[in-house]
Amino acid sequence: MTRRTGRRPGNPDTREAILDAARTAFAERGFDAASIRGIAGTAEVDPALVHHYFGSKDQLFLAAMNFPVDPGEVVPKVLAGGQDHIGERLVRTFVGVWDSPAGAAGIALIRSAVSNEWTAKLLREFITTQVLRRVLDQLDVDPAQLPLRGSLVATQLIGLAMMRYVIRLEPVASADPEMLIAAVGPTLQRYLTGPLPT
Amino acid sequence: MTRRTGRRPGNPDTREAILDAARTAFAERGFDAASIRGIAGTAEVDPALVHHYFGSKDQLFLAAMNFPVDPGEVVPKVLAGGQDHIGERLVRTFVGVWDSPAGAAGIALIRSAVSNEWTAKLLREFITTQVLRRVLDQLDVDPAQLPLRGSLVATQLIGLAMMRYVIRLEPVASADPEMLIAAVGPTLQRYLTGPLPT
Repeated sequence: MTRRTGRRPGNPDTREAILDAARTAFAERGFDAASIRGIAGTAEVDPALVHHYFGSKDQLFLAAMNFPVDPGEVVPKVLAGGQDHIGERLVRTFVGVWDSPAGAAGIALIRSAVSNEWTAKLLREFITTQVLRRVLDQLDVDPAQLPLRGSLVATQLIGLAMMRYVIRLEPVASADPEMLIAAVGPTLQRYLTGPLPT
Repeated sequence: MTRRTGRRPGNPDTREAILDAARTAFAERGFDAASIRGIAGTAEVDPALVHHYFGSKDQLFLAAMNFPVDPGEVVPKVLAGGQDHIGERLVRTFVGVWDSPAGAAGIALIRSAVSNEWTAKLLREFITTQVLRRVLDQLDVDPAQLPLRGSLVATQLIGLAMMRYVIRLEPVASADPEMLIAAVGPTLQRYLTGPLPT
């Protein structure tokens, strides 16, 4: 990962052209089929410059989405404690990010995904390739069930974000994080590791 | 309830003026403090005309929100089977409405509530006065816990709607309703009738 030292490198127009080309490529072709080379071609820059500005293809996707956290850092931390209480750790991490200043980027992302099919497509692709793929092989469950487990988790987490931060329905909106962790943790635990309907 | 017979009664401009005045009143003052008389005054019509067009204050709120179903009809049906399996019945009813043509109004409502604080306020007020209030005294749980139980249910249901109908994340987006009912029903059952953190 390219270390960021406060100031972002490079010409802002060039950066924006690369990010636009990346969004188009990731939404139209999907993450796996999109290439740095192709994105650089669309943005009319050298592929080395894309690597120089953004690092890996994963990092470029993260920048293109303006995602509030890096799943490459967060997902391993949530997984690190093992399967017991993983649901609670996941809610704790999720609420921690959203209660922090980074939550504003999350709200902006939800607003955009709801009003814009393009962003919805990018978000689907991001959840699948950047979040769920990092969980694969790390949980002791049937890998074939992981997409269902992951998307059930996504329903509860995006709904929690909606009600707490966007619609702001009380008492969830101002509930103590520990209460939410205790209430919602078991839901995610069951979606991730419990028996599922077939 | 005023029976609708296909054609909506009255002058469209007058209807729209009443609905605009109602949205303002319900959002600014709340459902309980808003009055048909005050709304009629803002819309510069006779209160009897508001009753004639929309029926009760509940019905006026429903029309103002363009809510996809009438909680006055749906909530008693979900409650009618008793507390056992109420979670499953709730998901079944919810998915049934959203999978029907009425789901389009739900998607429009979510889009509006996410981008517009005014609609978010109306939606909060609607959930509290039109949905949760109808459940009060019908469930064998501490009434003081009902707002928390209700808002936890709301997190899971709006998140299910977001992922299935708006973001359309697979496999939840095209999952068989029975699978969703079996997966999500126990979550709502626990939120409604299970032990809660205090």
